[in-house]
Amino acid sequence: MEKSAPSARTRVQRFPGRGAYDSDTIAAILDEGLVCHLGFVVDGQPFVLPTTYVREGQTLYLHGSASNRMLNVLAAGVDACVTVTLLDGLVLARSAFKHSMNYRSVVVLGRAQAVTDPAEKRRILSVLIEHIMPGRSTQVRQPNERELGATLLLAMPITEASAKIRRGPPIDDPSDYSHNCWAGELPLRIRPLPPVPDPKLSTGIATPDALVDYRRGSS
Amino acid sequence: MEKSAPSARTRVQRFPGRGAYDSDTIAAILDEGLVCHLGFVVDGQPFVLPTTYVREGQTLYLHGSASNRMLNVLAAGVDACVTVTLLDGLVLARSAFKHSMNYRSVVVLGRAQAVTDPAEKRRILSVLIEHIMPGRSTQVRQPNERELGATLLLAMPITEASAKIRRGPPIDDPSDYSHNCWAGELPLRIRPLPPVPDPKLSTGIATPDALVDYRRGSS
Repeated sequence: MEKSAPSARTRVQRFPGRGAYDSDTIAAILDEGLVCHLGFVVDGQPFVLPTTYVREGQTLYLHGSASNRMLNVLAAGVDACVTVTLLDGLVLARSAFKHSMNYRSVVVLGRAQAVTDPAEKRRILSVLIEHIMPGRSTQVRQPNERELGATLLLAMPITEASAKIRRGPPIDDPSDYSHNCWAGELPLRIRPLPPVPDPKLSTGIATPDALVDYRRGSS
Repeated sequence: MEKSAPSARTRVQRFPGRGAYDSDTIAAILDEGLVCHLGFVVDGQPFVLPTTYVREGQTLYLHGSASNRMLNVLAAGVDACVTVTLLDGLVLARSAFKHSMNYRSVVVLGRAQAVTDPAEKRRILSVLIEHIMPGRSTQVRQPNERELGATLLLAMPITEASAKIRRGPPIDDPSDYSHNCWAGELPLRIRPLPPVPDPKLSTGIATPDALVDYRRGSS
């Protein structure tokens, strides 16, 4: 695993052993996530807003309404930060101090620009739907001209990025291992509840198996 | 539900009907979350980093190592943004364009300051452990003087805050309801896998029931 950060400001400073900078590790985390947190600055005030995204190659795509304030700020080419966090579990130590979480996160710094070519917009919007629900992009009604025009699609290069990963059991102080308290990890996962059909769903349309078995990543 | 934002910059602009500003709604979302995304600016560059937190009353507490760069930037009193997002489900519409997510999110703008009183630090750190795992704070070894000194605890007032909530089925265009495609919501929840005991766990310590049944919020 490559341990050299692409820039000083993406180098993991706390627990540097948890840092990773290779594109495969970063891609796997981005591909498992559903929501990113997008940071940008307006009049000196940082804002952090959740939104969907998709990665393709070394590019991160964000989209939303063409009248979305956040995306229009970004499209102007300001400095941005996109962070994706996968919470893998609670790390329950014997001392309060050593409690932690197992997680995988990616931070991408950079600037975005709008994708304007209609064919490329259509293609990436399909890739986005496949990212969220594999197989669905061919089943739904495709965007028409009006919808495409009402959608702002932004591309951000994944060049200045880092991952940070914690896994494994708690690391207690040697003198605490005799403390009479359960210790270990409680793994957490995203799981589906039974699908809720739209009350207006036409009769005779079965629930796709892909929904019942929905998983993210390999877990 | 109060619909008046505490400031122009916290008013929900896209889909204003999804905005909420009353303290009960905001508190419930903050209390269900495990990880927040903290935004701050260094040399004009926004950074967004995940971290744990806890709410008590109208205050949000963040903590970490006293040598943590992010927290020290914050302790200096710079403008910050803390965002908590609960992903409740995927909203699968008949058209690609109307796909969405059901979620509850909170954005808090403000400045943090360090909590320095040792007794208050101890108390809030216990509240933080209770937030993550109810009942655990009394079972673990309490922080000693060295650990307390190595912990930076920050308090941020929840005065300039807003919530945004989407729930319910997809809203398709009228002409799309006849499209032959399943539509509805796939609810998503955080669920535990079986607890993984620390390989160094002493024999004879049972796994607490609270781990097996672990839930966030009312779902």
